[in-house]
Amino acid sequence: MHQTDIVVETRGRGSYEITGKVAAAVTDAGVTTGLCHVFIAHTSASLMLCENADPDVRRDLETFMADLVPDGDARFVHRAEGPDDMPAHVRSVLTQADLNIPIRNARLALGTWQGIYVWEHRRGAHRRRVIVTVQGKR
Amino acid sequence: MHQTDIVVETRGRGSYEITGKVAAAVTDAGVTTGLCHVFIAHTSASLMLCENADPDVRRDLETFMADLVPDGDARFVHRAEGPDDMPAHVRSVLTQADLNIPIRNARLALGTWQGIYVWEHRRGAHRRRVIVTVQGKR
Amino acid sequence: MHQTDIVVETRGRGSYEITGKVAAAVTDAGVTTGLCHVFIAHTSASLMLCENADPDVRRDLETFMADLVPDGDARFVHRAEGPDDMPAHVRSVLTQADLNIPIRNARLALGTWQGIYVWEHRRGAHRRRVIVTVQGKR
Repeated sequence: MHQTDIVVETRGRGSYEITGKVAAAVTDAGVTTGLCHVFIAHTSASLMLCENADPDVRRDLETFMADLVPDGDARFVHRAEGPDDMPAHVRSVLTQADLNIPIRNARLALGTWQGIYVWEHRRGAHRRRVIVTVQGKR
Repeated sequence: MHQTDIVVETRGRGSYEITGKVAAAVTDAGVTTGLCHVFIAHTSASLMLCENADPDVRRDLETFMADLVPDGDARFVHRAEGPDDMPAHVRSVLTQADLNIPIRNARLALGTWQGIYVWEHRRGAHRRRVIVTVQGKR
Repeated sequence: MHQTDIVVETRGRGSYEITGKVAAAVTDAGVTTGLCHVFIAHTSASLMLCENADPDVRRDLETFMADLVPDGDARFVHRAEGPDDMPAHVRSVLTQADLNIPIRNARLALGTWQGIYVWEHRRGAHRRRVIVTVQGKR
């Protein structure tokens, strides 16, 4: 069990790739066959496995989510931190706070088009903490 | 690998916090660095990591889901157990049946605002079975 | 840590049960108490724990998703592979790419009504690769 932190300073709503940093944690752990667990310690940002080639994919995901869970929606009572507060919680619940990715031949066994992203759901910049736990055979 | 069960007797649709019971399973296992896996053995109730301070957040989540997947929706063919039967399955598929949470310093490494909840999607009371598996270094 | 691959040749959009193949991987690993991790190495197909008794449940899920994320939606810019390309990515992000299931008494500790499915989101046939990682005590 090897545990490390990744800190992501977001610049507001959008997705931020962390594949390289997660891969580095796997290399540091020296595990050849196992699992790499990634966890985000927040309820208004998510982790996402997403297509990593065409940036339009992530733009379209934003469009979809913004329509599905509109900022300032009059149905929401909780708006302590503004019109994007409750939508950020809904978006988090509809996506993932943790991912587990197989390790094979000492590498993340991601598909060709899979990248790992932090998805910031708040409009403002935030400091997001991600915990990576690597386990397996050396 | 330490495995224990948590039984949650729900009183119908809504969320029920189990953070304390999951934390107790971690303490019992005596693991200092590792992972705590939580699994719900049902397809009409979920697990959720959610903001744990303002109960309005969970009320707003109910409002959102009730609008997104309405009970008695005429599009649904499967209604063997009533108008909330198929919506409960949809809500389960859109959320999580299992969560994995890092353990650090012998504690769940949850963020300040993260609580663990069973989300009952059926209108009636149900007995829900949750399996907790703790692994790691002592 | 025992790792094996399952290849699923889909015949286009729909769900394909793999519970038996995952259970066989658990048996082969000889683990009595542990966890079985299932991962799909794609961003346009998902894994799903779903009710396994009435096929209408999975038909209703298709109906729901087809309405929520319509093929050919004019909001989507990314359509390199056709009108079902971006919807497949959205459906993947709203569901799961990995599942972790407890093993107890050398078997998957699934609930009575839980089956494991590959959910193909593209209209055409695809070859989908699933990686199963089994860990625990013998």
